[in-house]
Amino acid sequence: MKKFVNDPKDFVPEMLKGIALANPKTLKYIPEYNLIMRTDIPRDDKVSVMQGSGSGHEPAHVMVVGRGMLDAACPGNVFAAPPADFVYQTTKLVASKKGVLHLLNNYTGDTMSFDMGREMAEADGIVVKTVVINDDVAVKDSTWTVGRRGVAGNFFVMKAVGAASERGASLDDLEKLGKRVVAVTRTMGMALTGCTPPAKGTPIFTLGDDEMEMGIGIHGEPGRKRVKLAKANEIADELLEAVASDLPYKAGDEVAVMVNGMGGTPISELYLLYGHIHEQVTKRGMKIKHNYVGNYCTSLEMAGFSLTLVKLDPELEDLLNAPAEIAIRVF
Amino acid sequence: MKKFVNDPKDFVPEMLKGIALANPKTLKYIPEYNLIMRTDIPRDDKVSVMQGSGSGHEPAHVMVVGRGMLDAACPGNVFAAPPADFVYQTTKLVASKKGVLHLLNNYTGDTMSFDMGREMAEADGIVVKTVVINDDVAVKDSTWTVGRRGVAGNFFVMKAVGAASERGASLDDLEKLGKRVVAVTRTMGMALTGCTPPAKGTPIFTLGDDEMEMGIGIHGEPGRKRVKLAKANEIADELLEAVASDLPYKAGDEVAVMVNGMGGTPISELYLLYGHIHEQVTKRGMKIKHNYVGNYCTSLEMAGFSLTLVKLDPELEDLLNAPAEIAIRVF
Repeated sequence: MKKFVNDPKDFVPEMLKGIALANPKTLKYIPEYNLIMRTDIPRDDKVSVMQGSGSGHEPAHVMVVGRGMLDAACPGNVFAAPPADFVYQTTKLVASKKGVLHLLNNYTGDTMSFDMGREMAEADGIVVKTVVINDDVAVKDSTWTVGRRGVAGNFFVMKAVGAASERGASLDDLEKLGKRVVAVTRTMGMALTGCTPPAKGTPIFTLGDDEMEMGIGIHGEPGRKRVKLAKANEIADELLEAVASDLPYKAGDEVAVMVNGMGGTPISELYLLYGHIHEQVTKRGMKIKHNYVGNYCTSLEMAGFSLTLVKLDPELEDLLNAPAEIAIRVF
Repeated sequence: MKKFVNDPKDFVPEMLKGIALANPKTLKYIPEYNLIMRTDIPRDDKVSVMQGSGSGHEPAHVMVVGRGMLDAACPGNVFAAPPADFVYQTTKLVASKKGVLHLLNNYTGDTMSFDMGREMAEADGIVVKTVVINDDVAVKDSTWTVGRRGVAGNFFVMKAVGAASERGASLDDLEKLGKRVVAVTRTMGMALTGCTPPAKGTPIFTLGDDEMEMGIGIHGEPGRKRVKLAKANEIADELLEAVASDLPYKAGDEVAVMVNGMGGTPISELYLLYGHIHEQVTKRGMKIKHNYVGNYCTSLEMAGFSLTLVKLDPELEDLLNAPAEIAIRVF
């Protein structure tokens, strides 16, 4: 296993310690509950927004805590949902009089933990609402999911509700906004290689030298098909057709485009892909108002990428333009 | 070769096209000379700052063009210096009455191209000064270098002179400033894996499953030694000792620390490394005023990282705090 790791069981805590040491003024790390939270939260004039997920998808979610994005993130181990108690404790620590918004990507393990964590918090009198993200068009159900999976499109939900929460929006309004962003966001990804969780020590799946997996999940769950490696533009075209035809996105739509690396793909290749996707989206008559090229929601060192489209309206565009101050400045 | 590529010979132009399409207001791409430049340059109230290098090190340098960093970058092919004519043409396009500053990392090919390009520009009456960056402590001479190599520490030079140039500093002052930053900046890197240039199609070097290369160059040039894979903290300690003892950096120094990924290392691992390095630098009595964790100067999809220390003074710290607007917001 070619990784920077000490004892694999310390992989996540040591990463979280590093994030906090790199951002001493703005972030704190609470080791008991594996959580990263803002130092200036809770504030009773603001709904607190939090998300948990398995680790291994960084920067999602522990590196996107900060003003204008998440107020806290409670990760589980690599590719494992956070325990319900961590969700509960995180909710308690960030609880404000205006309430707490839970964001979660649609996986069965996360849903169970967040349901239980929310119930425990509600028993304490904390008001909690939930937005479930399920932007992945690749498959209907999957290894770890009933319904569609939540993947990189999640960033647009975090950004929109994070910005609106800073402006004082109510919990009900944030829930509506989050669901509205989910409704206009679609993603599909693919992989050239697998990846190796530190505690497992071997790849979660392997692909032949001439193979790729279209519609891959971010934990290596099977996608739509395993096929022969193709040229960059052909791969991009196939993802674009799958994503664009799903909502569908149409000529005249104003959109945001995200080309998200899976962790091991150089940014040179992501910009090469973006160039072609930009031309093809434009050729379909859409207008690209925002673009995001980089690593957002990853699978450790997997080589691959996902494409996300978001249909914009003036309110959503305004929220994407709002400032955000996070550990890594990807938005 | 598991890469997103169409025809390998179009790899660099297609990447540059993508960068320009993603930043239509601020950047333009000039295909004839393979260059990316700001749309609002040249300005006669400002020295223009430019750098060229081989491609394959992205975001260096084509993705760090923008206000407060570079005014232009002229890359060569992957791991190949830009032709002298591209250096000349780029210099002409950005030439201002205040002059042009050439930054270059110390490699024999880049030095030759920049020497010739500068002479051609000077024959046209353009005033050019040069700052050579050689921050890599790993080896004295190398496969492609007389003297030390220039690597990720380059970012501190670009940031400092980029910020000072926006404030109207003269060409002489920028040259002095650049050399002053080089004098207080040291780096060493290491690799867990090799990488594959698109046009070559096979890895530039290979390491056994239990091997790593300490002191690696960013084109796969040999470093100090090939040794057995070690734990993350042991690797970090060895790089820190090599870098810190070189200047040397001493108790009481105020420093910036950069943990730079080589392209294929997940950011989770980089933050894990940063946590340990932060503690060890602090234990040595230094005060960390700035930290940078991410991919800055890479080698395609190589897994590995480099550690950079910079000794700060109030002027340099002020310049690091200045705003920068680049394609990818890494600073």
